[in-house]
Order: sequence, then structure tokens, then C-alpha cells
Amino acid sequence: MDMRPIGVFDSGLGGLTAVRALRQILPEEHLIYFGDTARVPYGGRSKETLLKYARQDVHFLRSFDLKAIVIACGTVSTTSLSTLQKENDLPIVGVVEPTCRRALSVTNHKKVGIIATLASIRSGAYEATLRRLDPEVEVMGKPCPLFVPLVESGRIHRGDVVIETVAREYLEPLKSAGIDTLILGCTHYPLLTDIISDICGPGVSLVSAGEESAFELKRLLKAGELRAEEHSPGGAEFYVSDRVEDFERIASVFLGEDLHHAARRIDIDQY
Amino acid sequence: MDMRPIGVFDSGLGGLTAVRALRQILPEEHLIYFGDTARVPYGGRSKETLLKYARQDVHFLRSFDLKAIVIACGTVSTTSLSTLQKENDLPIVGVVEPTCRRALSVTNHKKVGIIATLASIRSGAYEATLRRLDPEVEVMGKPCPLFVPLVESGRIHRGDVVIETVAREYLEPLKSAGIDTLILGCTHYPLLTDIISDICGPGVSLVSAGEESAFELKRLLKAGELRAEEHSPGGAEFYVSDRVEDFERIASVFLGEDLHHAARRIDIDQY
Repeated sequence: MDMRPIGVFDSGLGGLTAVRALRQILPEEHLIYFGDTARVPYGGRSKETLLKYARQDVHFLRSFDLKAIVIACGTVSTTSLSTLQKENDLPIVGVVEPTCRRALSVTNHKKVGIIATLASIRSGAYEATLRRLDPEVEVMGKPCPLFVPLVESGRIHRGDVVIETVAREYLEPLKSAGIDTLILGCTHYPLLTDIISDICGPGVSLVSAGEESAFELKRLLKAGELRAEEHSPGGAEFYVSDRVEDFERIASVFLGEDLHHAARRIDIDQY
Repeated sequence: MDMRPIGVFDSGLGGLTAVRALRQILPEEHLIYFGDTARVPYGGRSKETLLKYARQDVHFLRSFDLKAIVIACGTVSTTSLSTLQKENDLPIVGVVEPTCRRALSVTNHKKVGIIATLASIRSGAYEATLRRLDPEVEVMGKPCPLFVPLVESGRIHRGDVVIETVAREYLEPLKSAGIDTLILGCTHYPLLTDIISDICGPGVSLVSAGEESAFELKRLLKAGELRAEEHSPGGAEFYVSDRVEDFERIASVFLGEDLHHAARRIDIDQY
């Protein structure tokens, strides 16, 4: 049994969907979230810059006495995970590999689609990981650059002609190509699950990156006897590197629950 | 007569609409554009950070022997213009004041609307400048956070249900409030002129920030006898601080002309 908190970080607030999944799957754990809102988005940065940023994010989180870290950021998971794992003496979980394992376990015909930001699709990380795990898999990636701003504008509901039109344009080529499994490879996309399911239909299974990293963490905590006491209340604290004014409103959307405490702002350059 | 080039900078590629206006209004001039694509967007940064970035942008541009500088970035124009003017011995033109002067000269009933990014509307810069120039003006600001990603996705054409729906939602409250003049306070918005005019109707005059700074520069060059030789071919060079791969495609949209030379990438941290 280990009552220490778990650190979670992302380039911005999208990683809060991973917090949501962690709260559901590991409700007794205490979470400390850091969103690097001053330096979002990470997508376009060089590998060196990303590693520098990721080290600072981990350094800040480790100012708390943590038992594990979840990297909710796909870009950092892809570029810096193994270095961070070598440099730190605690379990660190990324999003890419658990998500790919799950996709391969649910696909019937080994035809997997991936939707993500332009930077993630370009990095080829999901594609490379899927092929490494199963060389026979057919992979089709589709960047969906408007999904993040549309989600952040609250356009996530059935009947909204804007999100439905954009989603149809992005998803119909994947559907025509015959995918039976779709990876939601960006932390914002789980909020569009209804819209995406409606368009893809019942023949396509959706796999959400944040959820799979929560299951992976659960396995690791169990294996290491690091779980918090059963029925502990759990909880979450939030830190960001830029203005906190909109945090409650945006965070409530991502977390799917009302939030009654603001984030605190920290200076990430100090770490 | 002065054949030296004019420097133009913005946080990203949006400032290319200012280049487009400059090419039309001052076709004989040679332009050097810098887009700080590695650090875009500037909107959410602190004043200290913005001044640091703006000084680096100017320092890079002044590695060329320039006769003037245009700040195509509304945020920098607002926060750092007077400091940069004090520190540099050449004319520097911002976007906010020329645009406000123009809006006040075209409005009939002193009811002016402003659409811009959330950061620009929040800064209150256009509003404060309009009121300083005419205390009687009524000002109504409206942030349009989806316009930039929609423009960057190429959704700028009449008949596109996505841009038309979003634009109607943003603009109808301004129209109902009775504005007769609308400032397009973001460099991306001139690409939406058709859509915006259709919704606002003939009773609302549109004032584009980039265009007004080009006219302001023309006046300054004339006053200082700094114009290039008449009928010179003019031209433009492009520098960015992040990946150059998409530059040609995106830049062609903003410039409204095909572009047959890529941008060069520079390391802005060196300046």
C-alpha cells in the first residue's frame, strides 16, 4: 500500500481527459496534474526542445513525493519516454504503447485507423508502434486539426452542424477504407466520442489513448504493490504554467464534472 | 529615395496578410518577413516575455540593413511598440493605432465593432485606443477563437456551412447591437472578408488591420523621403523559426498568390 500521489502531465489541458479516466479507473488515488499551458502546443517542437520541456515537467512534478508518473502527452510519450524512464527511479507510463496494444487486441481484421493532431500523425509514432507489435496490421492515419479548437469552443454535442460536418469529412475516408478499430490519438478527442461513434457506426471500435494509459498504470501499481488503500477518497490538484483564469471552465468540460477549485500557476522555467 | 528593405514580423504566418497589403500598396518596396512560428501564439504570454520576443524579432530583422519595420502582430503592437520605437533609430509601425484612426474616420454613428483573438479582445488595446482618440465612440468587442484554425484549414469560401455557421454566431450579436464599422483585428481575418461582408451586409464598413498599417507606412516613407525608386520590381523574402515544410502552401493562401520559393528557417534564440 502506498498513499503517495501520482503525477500526470501534458502540454496543456487536454491531458485532463486522462485525469478523468484515472479518476474512474483508480478512484482511490491522489493525482497531481501539471499542464504546460505557457508552452502549448508541443507538437511542432524539435526533439531536443521536447526532452528539455519534458524533463522540466517531470522535475516540477517530482517536487512532490510521487509513486508514479503518467505522460498524457502523445508527443512526449513518443520522443522522450525511454530517456525519462532511464533518468527516474519510479514507474513512468506513456500513452502510445498501451493504446496500440489495446487496438491490436480489439481489431478483427487488422485494419486500424488513427486520428490525431497533424504533429502526431506526422511523427508516425502510433503507426510504427502498431507495426512493431504486429507487422501484419494495416494502419491508416488521419490528422484532424480542427478537432482541438472545436472541442475547446465547446462544440462537442450531437446536432451541431459545425462539428458534425467537420467530423464527417475527417472520418469518412477512414470508414470507406474499411477500418474496424479507431484510435483516438489525442487527449481532446474522447469528448467527441458520441459524434465519432455516430459517423463510424457500430462496426468500428473506438480506443481512447487516455483510458489505456490508466489501465496500464493500474497494472503497474498492482504489480509493484503501490496501490492506495481501498476506499480512500482520492483527489486531484492542478498546476499550470500560464494564466489560470479560464481553468475552471475548460477543466470542467474535460473532466466531465464541476470543479470548485482553481489551478495554481507555477513558473516552469525554474525547474 | 532609399532602396533598403522593410522588415515585417508577426508571431506566425498571419502577418503575411500584411505583406499582401504592403505588396499592393507599396509594390516597389522589398520586404523581409519574419514569422516566429516556433513560439506562436504570442497571445497568452506575459508582458516581459512579449518584449523579450519582440526585441529578438527586431534584432533578427536588423541583421539586414532596413529602413523601416512593420509589426504585424497585434499583441506586440499593443504591449511593446513604444519601447521598440525608443530603442531603434528607424520608423516602426504597429497595427492598432492606424486601424483605430481609420475606423473612426469611416464610422457614421460612432458604433464600432472589433473581432479578434481572445487574447487581443482581453487586452482591451483596440478599445482603449479608440476611446483615447474619441471618447464618445461606442465599442463592442467579440473574440472569434475558431476563425484562425478555420482559415488555416482553408475553410474561407462562400457556401462552406462550417465557416458560415461559425461566422454567423460570432457576428450576429455585433450586427444586432447596431455597429456600422467592424475592425478585423487579426491578421487572419481578411481572408474571410467575403463571408463577413455577406453576414454584416452593406451597412457595415470593414477595416482591415494589415491594410491600415501599410497605408501608415506609406505616409511615413513619403514624409522621410524613404520610398524605393518608382517601378522597381520589389519583392519579398521569408524567414521562420520553426519547420518550413508547410510554408509554401499556407503562405500562398495568405498572400493570395503562388509562391515559388520556400522560407528559410533561423534560430531566433540566437538573437
